[in-house]
Amino acid sequence: MNKLYIIKIGGNVLDDEKALKGFLRDFASIQSPKILIHGGGKIATKLGDQLGIQSHYVKGRRITDAPTLDLVTMVYGGLVNKQIVATLQSHHCNALGVTGADGNLIKATKRPVGEVDFGYVGDIIPDSVNSTLLYFLLKQNVIPVFAPLTHENGVMLNTNADTIASVLAISLSKHFDVRLIFCFERQGVLQDVSKEDSVIRTLNYARYQELLQQGAFHDGILPKLENAFHAIQSGVKEVLIGEHTNLLANIGYDTQGTLITQA
Amino acid sequence: MNKLYIIKIGGNVLDDEKALKGFLRDFASIQSPKILIHGGGKIATKLGDQLGIQSHYVKGRRITDAPTLDLVTMVYGGLVNKQIVATLQSHHCNALGVTGADGNLIKATKRPVGEVDFGYVGDIIPDSVNSTLLYFLLKQNVIPVFAPLTHENGVMLNTNADTIASVLAISLSKHFDVRLIFCFERQGVLQDVSKEDSVIRTLNYARYQELLQQGAFHDGILPKLENAFHAIQSGVKEVLIGEHTNLLANIGYDTQGTLITQA
Repeated sequence: MNKLYIIKIGGNVLDDEKALKGFLRDFASIQSPKILIHGGGKIATKLGDQLGIQSHYVKGRRITDAPTLDLVTMVYGGLVNKQIVATLQSHHCNALGVTGADGNLIKATKRPVGEVDFGYVGDIIPDSVNSTLLYFLLKQNVIPVFAPLTHENGVMLNTNADTIASVLAISLSKHFDVRLIFCFERQGVLQDVSKEDSVIRTLNYARYQELLQQGAFHDGILPKLENAFHAIQSGVKEVLIGEHTNLLANIGYDTQGTLITQA
Repeated sequence: MNKLYIIKIGGNVLDDEKALKGFLRDFASIQSPKILIHGGGKIATKLGDQLGIQSHYVKGRRITDAPTLDLVTMVYGGLVNKQIVATLQSHHCNALGVTGADGNLIKATKRPVGEVDFGYVGDIIPDSVNSTLLYFLLKQNVIPVFAPLTHENGVMLNTNADTIASVLAISLSKHFDVRLIFCFERQGVLQDVSKEDSVIRTLNYARYQELLQQGAFHDGILPKLENAFHAIQSGVKEVLIGEHTNLLANIGYDTQGTLITQA
């Protein structure tokens, strides 16, 4: 099977013009088929402030009320997504920007109201990915660029970008030898969050459970690790977590960051 | 050849929630392959006001400075485009929202500065349309929905939606029997703009030139007519101009609005 790189970048890259430029140049130069998933970044909050849309967070997650949904649809699905697409086009990378609504690529259900009402937030329906259309686009050398949005029956839903990346990787592993890469601000998963040189080079599920019980991980990394292990246990060939410059410069040669393994 | 409907809707439909809902239901029910091109609408101006981005117009055309480009990229390419896509999905129409940058579908050049500097406005490169990708998407039963934006080498460009519709129609007429429909607030091209019942049923180029010299047309209709005649003279099978409710209800049966003919 052909290799497919699925690469997720977070807000830290999006918020830094120079870093984003460098990342997109590196991304464009990857010769295999590839998919990019981008997060949000601070610009939505900044624009929201200007528009009088207040940001509410519960447990680190933004509450998506109706005005916030419009805001993130504009900013993530419009401004950020199209700027990335246009820049990739300037590097002769034939990017096509999408949300989960486009081409019915990813369906979700609005998260049920429990202790917290997260608002217009989507929980992805795992088997809903339109992998036929994605496969066809990739065969045409078109590079899908996902904004962190899905849909349910006519309604856009704000959706976690790490989860989108993981679900896409799992779904496409029937067509490709998928390498899933989560880029974030750290060099990898750190054994000690205060020490940047404490990167865990390889992490299997047993060791992850051990470290988890010792409380070794800070909150931010946990959803990423959950998505990473779910992917590696569901047919994805390789999962890497780390800092984009190192990961993309060494792609296919040397393992930088943290390699997630099954056993 | 198979029929392909290329339908352009303007701001008047977008600004009216009920009209838009009706239009999208009618559009979804068209059984042939189809493409939708939407304009902008007043919401960009409203949001621009809230963000302190002032609108400047010269001869009825918005000047697109850098903040305005970001605004229209967000609003046209994000909010409006994705709301249309999601609504069409709810009608089981597999819409995919795009700009000219996505899939390198339409390239343009930034309009040269003459008497007026229009800013980030694109003049389409006619032969640049990626009709191969559009053809493949349509064959997959995917319905492209265009926002009025194109690109040049990494830069998004604000672009007239009527012109996008016309250029797409011409480019796809090598693959399809193309019917181009311009929807606007009138019942058709009016002989006397003050009389809604003065619709010209069919208009050929000779008669158009005559009426033009008599000053029969108001400014707003002129770019539409130029695009319409350019299309009909360049391989497009049929061009209709009129009000969406009548045009779409009678599609394929009875000619409503103004039919543009070659001779």
